[in-house]
Amino acid sequence: MTKLVLDITTTLDGFVAGPNQTLEQPLGAGGERIHEWVYGLVSWRESHGLAGGESNPDDEMVAASRAEAGAVLMGRRMFSGGAGPWTDDANANGWWGDDPPYDVPVFVLTHHEREPLAMQGKTAFTFVTDGVESGCAQARAAAGERDVLLAGGANVAQQFLRAGLVDEVQLHIAPLLLGDGVRLFDGLGDDLPTLEATRVIESPTITHIRYRVVR
Amino acid sequence: MTKLVLDITTTLDGFVAGPNQTLEQPLGAGGERIHEWVYGLVSWRESHGLAGGESNPDDEMVAASRAEAGAVLMGRRMFSGGAGPWTDDANANGWWGDDPPYDVPVFVLTHHEREPLAMQGKTAFTFVTDGVESGCAQARAAAGERDVLLAGGANVAQQFLRAGLVDEVQLHIAPLLLGDGVRLFDGLGDDLPTLEATRVIESPTITHIRYRVVR
Repeated sequence: MTKLVLDITTTLDGFVAGPNQTLEQPLGAGGERIHEWVYGLVSWRESHGLAGGESNPDDEMVAASRAEAGAVLMGRRMFSGGAGPWTDDANANGWWGDDPPYDVPVFVLTHHEREPLAMQGKTAFTFVTDGVESGCAQARAAAGERDVLLAGGANVAQQFLRAGLVDEVQLHIAPLLLGDGVRLFDGLGDDLPTLEATRVIESPTITHIRYRVVR
Repeated sequence: MTKLVLDITTTLDGFVAGPNQTLEQPLGAGGERIHEWVYGLVSWRESHGLAGGESNPDDEMVAASRAEAGAVLMGRRMFSGGAGPWTDDANANGWWGDDPPYDVPVFVLTHHEREPLAMQGKTAFTFVTDGVESGCAQARAAAGERDVLLAGGANVAQQFLRAGLVDEVQLHIAPLLLGDGVRLFDGLGDDLPTLEATRVIESPTITHIRYRVVR
């Protein structure tokens, strides 16, 4: 059965991006460090058109997550980097380049209406302006039997958590302290979900904990 | 070689106590839930003079930590619960009862001078008023070849982290979201330590990650 999986990397002090996000620094000050663990992996490099890389438990986990994902959900900032509202210019296709690494339908939560955007490979961006329930329904329909991967950022993750739409949380906990930035679990209100750890994968660089959201 | 190990339970959203700590509620609103994982374990119950309990990977981990600890460090609030500055009344011996669960020398960081307090069992409280370096030195001397366990709370943990006195962090990550409360990794300034995960222990109720602080 299709599950909606929030899949995101957090620092040990709970940040998914650094402070002071700008156009030039969409992940905020120091935010690139949060994701450093993934850049050298075979599966990540392959999906970005790069050869080589390291194969280890992290890589196997990333490859499995990719294989399980039939659709991806993300926020507008994650689609376009820190850039402001895009124009309808055909070149304004986010920071993922002509051949984005997803190879599945991607649904972008945004306030700005826009026609769907088919990219090279199997990635196609659909822009969802009528809220998380609609985004969830569209992504689930597109995913078929596979999972929907909610990739971030924090704001969209929080909207989905508040709406009770997240089935599992796949948290990659980087052994990093950032001190300041954008927190993943912020502004969730009083009706907080109960979680249950279902799988832990240990590696020298990062700890992956998978949680089931208990309704 | 003696290591100083910060050993503390945190929620997934980074809290080691709930909000609104009071005399009646020293762990803050909802804070008791953070530590629920430990109350049923054989090793915890035994140290509190209680029979029975569950034996599982969590219990083995707690038993091993106890066996490795030659001395304990804690803050004044953890010693006395949420109570205000104590008097020299011989009965004002904190919330740990006459036979505290430590059975090793315990050094309490405080602003209030007080004579050492020998309890039943092997627990003896020494009150340290001249700062974390002094507390660290005294606890290390008392620990012999064993480790010094820094038990919390957040304020004292942060003082030790800022002073660069922590060798390892043993984090018990409860699958809980609290939404508000006292954060463990707060106010550490700009000179943040680098960490490296050295051991992960998985259980159905909680995830234990041990980090080495890289100097």
